[in-house]
Amino acid sequence: MDFTAELKRHVARVERGLDQFVPRADTRPSRLHTAMRYSLEAGGKRLRPVLLVATAELFGTRDDSPLAAGKADALAAAVALECVHTYSLIHDDLPCMDNDDLRRGRPTAHKQFDEATALLAGDALLTHAFALLGENYPDPLAATLVRELANAAGSRHLIGGQMEDLLAEKKSDATPDELEFIHLNKTAAMIEAALVMGGLIGQANEDAITTLRRAGRHLGLAFQIVDDILDATSDTATLGKTAGKDLKAGKTTFVKLHGLDASRRFAQTNTQSAAEALRTLPGDASFLTWLGTSLGSRPK
Amino acid sequence: MDFTAELKRHVARVERGLDQFVPRADTRPSRLHTAMRYSLEAGGKRLRPVLLVATAELFGTRDDSPLAAGKADALAAAVALECVHTYSLIHDDLPCMDNDDLRRGRPTAHKQFDEATALLAGDALLTHAFALLGENYPDPLAATLVRELANAAGSRHLIGGQMEDLLAEKKSDATPDELEFIHLNKTAAMIEAALVMGGLIGQANEDAITTLRRAGRHLGLAFQIVDDILDATSDTATLGKTAGKDLKAGKTTFVKLHGLDASRRFAQTNTQSAAEALRTLPGDASFLTWLGTSLGSRPK
Repeated sequence: MDFTAELKRHVARVERGLDQFVPRADTRPSRLHTAMRYSLEAGGKRLRPVLLVATAELFGTRDDSPLAAGKADALAAAVALECVHTYSLIHDDLPCMDNDDLRRGRPTAHKQFDEATALLAGDALLTHAFALLGENYPDPLAATLVRELANAAGSRHLIGGQMEDLLAEKKSDATPDELEFIHLNKTAAMIEAALVMGGLIGQANEDAITTLRRAGRHLGLAFQIVDDILDATSDTATLGKTAGKDLKAGKTTFVKLHGLDASRRFAQTNTQSAAEALRTLPGDASFLTWLGTSLGSRPK
Repeated sequence: MDFTAELKRHVARVERGLDQFVPRADTRPSRLHTAMRYSLEAGGKRLRPVLLVATAELFGTRDDSPLAAGKADALAAAVALECVHTYSLIHDDLPCMDNDDLRRGRPTAHKQFDEATALLAGDALLTHAFALLGENYPDPLAATLVRELANAAGSRHLIGGQMEDLLAEKKSDATPDELEFIHLNKTAAMIEAALVMGGLIGQANEDAITTLRRAGRHLGLAFQIVDDILDATSDTATLGKTAGKDLKAGKTTFVKLHGLDASRRFAQTNTQSAAEALRTLPGDASFLTWLGTSLGSRPK
C-alpha cells in the first residue's frame, strides 16, 4: 500500500467533507459562518478526522457494517471531530488564553476578525459537531457517538486538560502528575475518541473498541510530546505557529520536565505501544500503524 | 391550581436537578467545575428548564409516555437547557462581548474567576448539555433531543442571533428585519426548544409539537421584548444586572426602534398568541399559560 497516497486520499475526502457538512459562508449571519470556515479551512494535518475515517474503513468491509449497508458514512463524524478540534484552537488562541497571533501560518481568528467573532465561531463549531452526529447517524449509533464526543471534549477531558494547562503555566513547579493529566486530557482524549468513534461507526465489537481506546491513548500521548519537542526545537516558519512559545511562557511541557532525550524516548515507546495494539485488530491496520509511527517520528 | 406554588415546585426540582446532573465542584480540575457551578447556581428565573418540565408533565400522564413508564425523566434535559443558557450568559458577559461585571446581582464569572476560566466554564457547560442528553434518554429520543438543542443553540439561531446583535450594536440604523432576526434567534429559539423538548420527552404527537413550537416562539418574542422594556425602565438593583445598558450602548432594541408603548403592545400580542396556541393542546395547559402570561406582563 502506498501510505502517502492513502493519507492524501483521506485528507482530500475530509476537506470535501468540511465543505459539505458546514454551512456555507453566506448563511446568515455570514460573518459568523465566514469565520467558522476561515478557521476550518486553514489546513492542518486533519489528523483526528483521518484517524476516524481510516479506523471506520478498517471495520467497514464487514457485511453487517452500516458503512457497507450504505446506512452510515464516517465523514460527518470526522467533520464533527475537526469542528471540535478547530473550536478548541480558536478559543486557545484568544488573548485571555494563549494569546497567539499565528495559526497554521495565517492570522488567528481573533486577529483576522475580532475577539467576539472568534469566540462565537468557536462556540458555533462546537455546537455544530453535535448537530452533525445527531443528524447523520441512525439510532442507537447517533447517541453513542454523542456520548463519546461529549465525554472526550468535556470538562473532565479536553476542556479540563486545557484548564490544568493554564493553571500549570502560572507556577514553575507543575508535577509529573499534573503534566500527565494535561497530556492525557488536552490531547490524547480526542485522538482516542477519533479511533473509538471510527470503530463505533464500523460496528467494531467491544474488544476491538477497547483496543482502539488503548491505541488512541498511546498515539495521543506520543503526538502531544512530539508537539512539545517541536515547540522547543523548531522555528516559527516551519511550525506555522509561534515556536518556543511554551518554554518562554514557562509552560510545563514534557521537554521542560524531563529533557529532550527522555521526551523522544517516551514518544517512541508510546508510538510502539499504539502500533502493537493496532496489530491485534482484525483487518489490515497497516495504514493506521504507519500514520501513528510517522507522527511519533516527526522530530528529526 | 395554585400557580405560584406550582412554579416554586418546578424551580425547586430544577435546582435539585442542577446539583444532581452537573459534576461536583471538587471534580478535577476543581477550578473549572467550581466556576461552572458558580454560574449555574447564581439563581435566575429558571424559565427555560421550568417550561421544559412543565410541558413534559402536560403530556406525561399518557400511558405510552416514557415518563409514565419510568423510562425517561424531563429533568436531565431541563438541566441541559439551563447549562446552554448559562454558557451563553457567561460568554455574553465577557469583555470582548457585552463586558458586564454584574449578573443576577453577583460578579460575572470572569470577574469572580478570570477570563480564561469563564471562557472554559462556558465551553464546558455547552458540552455537558449534549452529554446529558446522550446519557439520559433512550433511543431514538436522545438523538432527537440532541438535534433540537444543537439546532436551537447553533450558528443559525442562538449564536447567530448573538452575532447579529453585536453587529447591530455597531451601527445606529439596524433595520426591523435585523431586529426580528436577533429576537427570534437570540431568545425565542431556546424558549421554543424548551417547549418542543418537553413535548418530545412527553411523546407529544406531531401536531402538538407544531403547536408547542408556535407557542414557544411567541413566548420567546414576548419575553425578549419585556427584557428590552425592563432594561429601559428599571434600575440596576431591581434587575440584578446593569440597567439602561442596552440603550446607552446604542444597542438596537425593540424599545429603541418602536418606543415603549408599541413594545408593550407587541409583548401583549405575542403573549396572547402563545396562550391561544397552548389552549388547543390536550391536557391542562393552564400553568404554562399562566407562566407565559405572567412573563409577558412583567413590566408595570
